[in-house]
Amino acid sequence: MCVGIDPVAERLPKDVAGADAIERVRAWSLAIAEAVAPHVPAVKIQSACFERFGWKGVRVCEEVVTRSKELGLVVILDAKRGDIGASSEHYAAGQLAGDRNADALTVNSYLGVDGIEPFIAAAARDRKGLFALVRTSNPGGDALQGLALEDGRSVSDAVAQLVAGAGAAHVGSEGYSLLGAVVGATKAADAVRLRELMPQQIFLVPGFGAQGGKADDVRACFRAGKLGRSGAIITASRSVIFAHEKRAGVDWRTAVVDAAKQMKDEVNAILA
Amino acid sequence: MCVGIDPVAERLPKDVAGADAIERVRAWSLAIAEAVAPHVPAVKIQSACFERFGWKGVRVCEEVVTRSKELGLVVILDAKRGDIGASSEHYAAGQLAGDRNADALTVNSYLGVDGIEPFIAAAARDRKGLFALVRTSNPGGDALQGLALEDGRSVSDAVAQLVAGAGAAHVGSEGYSLLGAVVGATKAADAVRLRELMPQQIFLVPGFGAQGGKADDVRACFRAGKLGRSGAIITASRSVIFAHEKRAGVDWRTAVVDAAKQMKDEVNAILA
Repeated sequence: MCVGIDPVAERLPKDVAGADAIERVRAWSLAIAEAVAPHVPAVKIQSACFERFGWKGVRVCEEVVTRSKELGLVVILDAKRGDIGASSEHYAAGQLAGDRNADALTVNSYLGVDGIEPFIAAAARDRKGLFALVRTSNPGGDALQGLALEDGRSVSDAVAQLVAGAGAAHVGSEGYSLLGAVVGATKAADAVRLRELMPQQIFLVPGFGAQGGKADDVRACFRAGKLGRSGAIITASRSVIFAHEKRAGVDWRTAVVDAAKQMKDEVNAILA
Repeated sequence: MCVGIDPVAERLPKDVAGADAIERVRAWSLAIAEAVAPHVPAVKIQSACFERFGWKGVRVCEEVVTRSKELGLVVILDAKRGDIGASSEHYAAGQLAGDRNADALTVNSYLGVDGIEPFIAAAARDRKGLFALVRTSNPGGDALQGLALEDGRSVSDAVAQLVAGAGAAHVGSEGYSLLGAVVGATKAADAVRLRELMPQQIFLVPGFGAQGGKADDVRACFRAGKLGRSGAIITASRSVIFAHEKRAGVDWRTAVVDAAKQMKDEVNAILA
């Protein structure tokens, strides 16, 4: 389980203090990491929500990454970077490599394997992880990623096989590659096939809760093994972090922790 | 014509001063903008090269954007952002909207039209431009974007049609949409077809020079009209900005200006 930290200034609880929007985002994001750290193993930090404030937002994002790591959380930076190789090297240095960066990064697959290779090299060197976009849960993603190829595969099937191939040289003792895949939670039928095509990929599954994904829909993202199901990171963002919106009179930290626990129970129930 | 500003600390001329790598990148990037401003109408700033330095790099990038605009240059920020709609709204606010940002932004198409819509909305509101990735010039891009669909189109053809459709509601008096397309310069055969599929898109054509694109290959990216060919922005980065590497003993600013003029002459020759 993973909680997505997607701060939106307009949706923060009223009692979050700060001189301006980015200061409030900073205070709230750090508090969210602290609130959920005892309950979930990982957070996914949405870079866009910080970048909207320019360099000051990026500085806060780096601070939230650092603090989340100090709290013992596995930190995924959801920045969906991708370019041709030379520029991907720079993004890998900026968003993935070294102690100051997150443990894992999301990357975009549209430029193909050579656009992802520099990220893989950085991840292998610094023991980090990656999640390449394979299938997203939005309708527009469907219109492109769901197109049928002449060989019978879909576009996202082809991307899945490219990702599986690119990650095959970097598989750890548990049978998972450092190169994982983003697989939208609202595509249960696709998840079964994508799991077959990518047996060594850890799936990052956003959209549990607010984006429409449900527990039943994500079971197929897991891989069955001797010790039970594994290999998927189920992420809820808005349904957890903005849980206060539906609980008038309840302290927002309590609402967040309750929502995180509830999500955890729901996912555990289907994995039992 | 457009010069790409892709600073790489290790390749800067030795006499560029600065206390550390990002300060040297800052000094050099500002100097490049000043050197080329009298000779070309636009610059494309590679965000990755700045982001590799963390928030301090982003701050310098913002400064280079601002200074380039002051110099009268059209400024394209090459950041290849893209996400589902809610997050794309944040990226649009961070990298495109308002006076502080560039005139245009590159975006990634893999999440489909609804991932691009928030950028279009911001561009329409603030009179900015966009370039969506359609066809890239790297081999790995080919392996994915060149795949054949069952209906006979390629993946990039399908993306081209999605882009043409998404941009159709925002076409100006010259017949061009605010939503343009990135079309790699090394794909001359593709360019002819993509120009047919996207008659209203301005093409951003990177890779003239160092990436292998040649003048002849890019002619097909232009649209013929009463006043001559138009509708493509031909970009050279490394072949111009690092021109000093091949001209020992020549001042680096002179080498850059000469290379920019040479590129301009080459492109003008094929458009004559």
